[in-house]
Amino acid sequence: MDIILPEAVGTFLLVLLGCGVVANVVLAGTKGFGGGWLLINFGWGLGVFAGVYAAVDTGAHINPAVTFGLWAAGGDLADGIDATVGNVLLYIVGQFIGAILGAVACWLAYKQHFDDEPDPALKLAVFSTAPAKRSYGWNTVTEVIATFVLVFVVIAFAGTPSELGPLAVALLVVGIGASLGGPTGYAINPARDLGPRIAHAILPIKGKGSSDWGYSWVPVLGPIIGGVLAGLLADPLLTFLPLD
Amino acid sequence: MDIILPEAVGTFLLVLLGCGVVANVVLAGTKGFGGGWLLINFGWGLGVFAGVYAAVDTGAHINPAVTFGLWAAGGDLADGIDATVGNVLLYIVGQFIGAILGAVACWLAYKQHFDDEPDPALKLAVFSTAPAKRSYGWNTVTEVIATFVLVFVVIAFAGTPSELGPLAVALLVVGIGASLGGPTGYAINPARDLGPRIAHAILPIKGKGSSDWGYSWVPVLGPIIGGVLAGLLADPLLTFLPLD
Amino acid sequence: MDIILPEAVGTFLLVLLGCGVVANVVLAGTKGFGGGWLLINFGWGLGVFAGVYAAVDTGAHINPAVTFGLWAAGGDLADGIDATVGNVLLYIVGQFIGAILGAVACWLAYKQHFDDEPDPALKLAVFSTAPAKRSYGWNTVTEVIATFVLVFVVIAFAGTPSELGPLAVALLVVGIGASLGGPTGYAINPARDLGPRIAHAILPIKGKGSSDWGYSWVPVLGPIIGGVLAGLLADPLLTFLPLD
Amino acid sequence: MDIILPEAVGTFLLVLLGCGVVANVVLAGTKGFGGGWLLINFGWGLGVFAGVYAAVDTGAHINPAVTFGLWAAGGDLADGIDATVGNVLLYIVGQFIGAILGAVACWLAYKQHFDDEPDPALKLAVFSTAPAKRSYGWNTVTEVIATFVLVFVVIAFAGTPSELGPLAVALLVVGIGASLGGPTGYAINPARDLGPRIAHAILPIKGKGSSDWGYSWVPVLGPIIGGVLAGLLADPLLTFLPLD
Repeated sequence: MDIILPEAVGTFLLVLLGCGVVANVVLAGTKGFGGGWLLINFGWGLGVFAGVYAAVDTGAHINPAVTFGLWAAGGDLADGIDATVGNVLLYIVGQFIGAILGAVACWLAYKQHFDDEPDPALKLAVFSTAPAKRSYGWNTVTEVIATFVLVFVVIAFAGTPSELGPLAVALLVVGIGASLGGPTGYAINPARDLGPRIAHAILPIKGKGSSDWGYSWVPVLGPIIGGVLAGLLADPLLTFLPLD
Repeated sequence: MDIILPEAVGTFLLVLLGCGVVANVVLAGTKGFGGGWLLINFGWGLGVFAGVYAAVDTGAHINPAVTFGLWAAGGDLADGIDATVGNVLLYIVGQFIGAILGAVACWLAYKQHFDDEPDPALKLAVFSTAPAKRSYGWNTVTEVIATFVLVFVVIAFAGTPSELGPLAVALLVVGIGASLGGPTGYAINPARDLGPRIAHAILPIKGKGSSDWGYSWVPVLGPIIGGVLAGLLADPLLTFLPLD
Repeated sequence: MDIILPEAVGTFLLVLLGCGVVANVVLAGTKGFGGGWLLINFGWGLGVFAGVYAAVDTGAHINPAVTFGLWAAGGDLADGIDATVGNVLLYIVGQFIGAILGAVACWLAYKQHFDDEPDPALKLAVFSTAPAKRSYGWNTVTEVIATFVLVFVVIAFAGTPSELGPLAVALLVVGIGASLGGPTGYAINPARDLGPRIAHAILPIKGKGSSDWGYSWVPVLGPIIGGVLAGLLADPLLTFLPLD
Repeated sequence: MDIILPEAVGTFLLVLLGCGVVANVVLAGTKGFGGGWLLINFGWGLGVFAGVYAAVDTGAHINPAVTFGLWAAGGDLADGIDATVGNVLLYIVGQFIGAILGAVACWLAYKQHFDDEPDPALKLAVFSTAPAKRSYGWNTVTEVIATFVLVFVVIAFAGTPSELGPLAVALLVVGIGASLGGPTGYAINPARDLGPRIAHAILPIKGKGSSDWGYSWVPVLGPIIGGVLAGLLADPLLTFLPLD
């Protein structure tokens, strides 16, 4: 529970706020309807911001791609948490619990708007990403590149003294969304995408359609590949690592 | 006065800037007319930013939901301020004084635009929130969830060293607005909503309509429930608490 | 020169970037045309950000309202700079030199867009503020309130430890613009408004119209009143002052 | 390699995220299509943010205009890196390698959108800047002014203690884009513009048009002049320099 609980709480906040901003922008009748891409980027970035504060005890991965990336990089997962298979699994269990519950809370917060929205695709869009142009190959490439940037720069944070704390990763996520979110909607986090998709499948959402399982492996596999690549390349490419 | 004055000044700034950005976006003929949801989120967030700097002596609650939440959490209300019923009342008195005066100052700053705006509902919208879809039950749920996030993460701030100061809570409020403001307009603060509503009822606003007292208890009750829940759940869910 | 030079350089950067963002949003054919109010708010806020870094030796007033406000508050103008009439004048001379030169540089950067813009009012809008609804009385009220917030919170910054440096005042200006800029375009700085207006009158701008001297005293008088009020009220209202 | 590698990695991230946000806003069918100028400004600014973290060992120039500016200013290029012609060349080699590879990665991330976009000018716009109104003289003036602000304020950062780290230069770039990007699209960095243009010429982009070599020297020469001017004027204009 020392790993599962913080990761679950942090990922809960991330997904609640992240899915929330999509609901606000795409569901009919909300106050933020049509609010634009930058609004979505800030919503997700500040979801990370909130989530990281709550998961400080586990290094606030709140993302299996970060966990896999740090594992690949060869160091500890966090202060005092060794990179063992068991601990990696505990991280991922926590992340998925939090992601599923965060999606449920988002649905409750926007319940009336889900009920009144006629388009099932927009309901699913609140929960999980869908590509602008469907191509499993190219969509995976985009998710690999975007997640590589996320995990690589998160590892780089260790090399530069600043006092931004969780704001640094929050802004990084705003930037990745702004710049690399165009083709696939930047899952860059398997738990953020698959967890809410499971919630979508389970919840009694009025008028819901398919959970699009055909695409569901892309935002899982792509981020894992990107995270692992970042972990493997961080040491050779970041000259200030290891810092010891 | 050691509690009332800082809370009044801080809440004054919060409400002046927060209601101000709504006036700028919704009243006819302003320079920010139709400026969008993210503009509103930044206006409220930076209103918190300004208000917190001015209320540092009382821990800058400037929100009864924060006061109730810290009370429920069982610690002090601020450095050197015990969580007594009397002190809680002093906080709330200060917050309401500031909120009412802030709404008056906002009305003065936008006086001509209030005079020329034909729609009474938009005039009230500057002062107090109204739901996108009216349902006292679901609107309360949304306010509970949004305020839970606010108070819970504010308590979590204590666990992570950063040097953001008031910027952290300001960004948190930007994020909550972006992500969870869609259904109800995110009161998340009883003083921010009821104080300006009282001002709306009292002020000689040209062509004003109803102050919508029927809805007025939702943005009071919802935030209090959310804040108390956050206070009760912070200790079990935030593993780094208490920090001593 | 120890006072004039930093204030001139800082105000130059402030006005170059501030007037620049207005040019980008309002002049025909620019890449940021029609970019919206939040873009303008960030442009001005980050103009303050740049300017403050360059004027650190004088406390980076870059605004006569701040200088008057600190004078009214009764302390020094900056570390090692006494609040004498002579020093106040040196600040203001530097601020106006910088503001005029910054407006000239903005005109050069957007020269072709000034040449091709048909509307003389939009050309002037790049240089100086104009009210959304003209009423010398109410426009002054708005400028008083907005500048009061600026100077009051700048004074309050001293009471809260954070490591934001110039970012704090930059964000404050973003917030004031978002929230209180709707009626008058938030001059909140006599040098920022009158300096560029003088540049507008002098420069050989193709097809320029009136410099609107009839309004020019409002964004001078209003900010001075607001700044002085903030200086006078800071000590009684900010309980942590003086900090010694 | 101690210089080339960090500069290449940092510039890679800068250009990947920077060109990426343009792709997101201008290429048909993306999720951020038509997202506006502020979105572009944040994308580029946060590209700088990411890049600076990765290049801390070389002072994170990731821009030849900064390298030339610091050279002109007469100090070291970074801690322990003397301002020799050889080191300057190493910086520039690293910057161009990173910029070219970053543009390639951006093309891969948006591959399907490049394929489906009918307008060759928009494809080039993702890679390199083009002026809103073509005039080699005035376009150069704009790039000189904008890059002067960048390098001058970067040098000024040394004089003001804050703990923003890479966020300071990121926000400065957001501000320069917002305020001075209107006429030319703010290259303000020869490697950022010429590197991707070379990539555009080499890559097998479907339906691509001219790489516009006629304009290509403007966003190289202008930023170099602006950076050198800033380096020469920093010491006389920034009264707190040198800091020793």
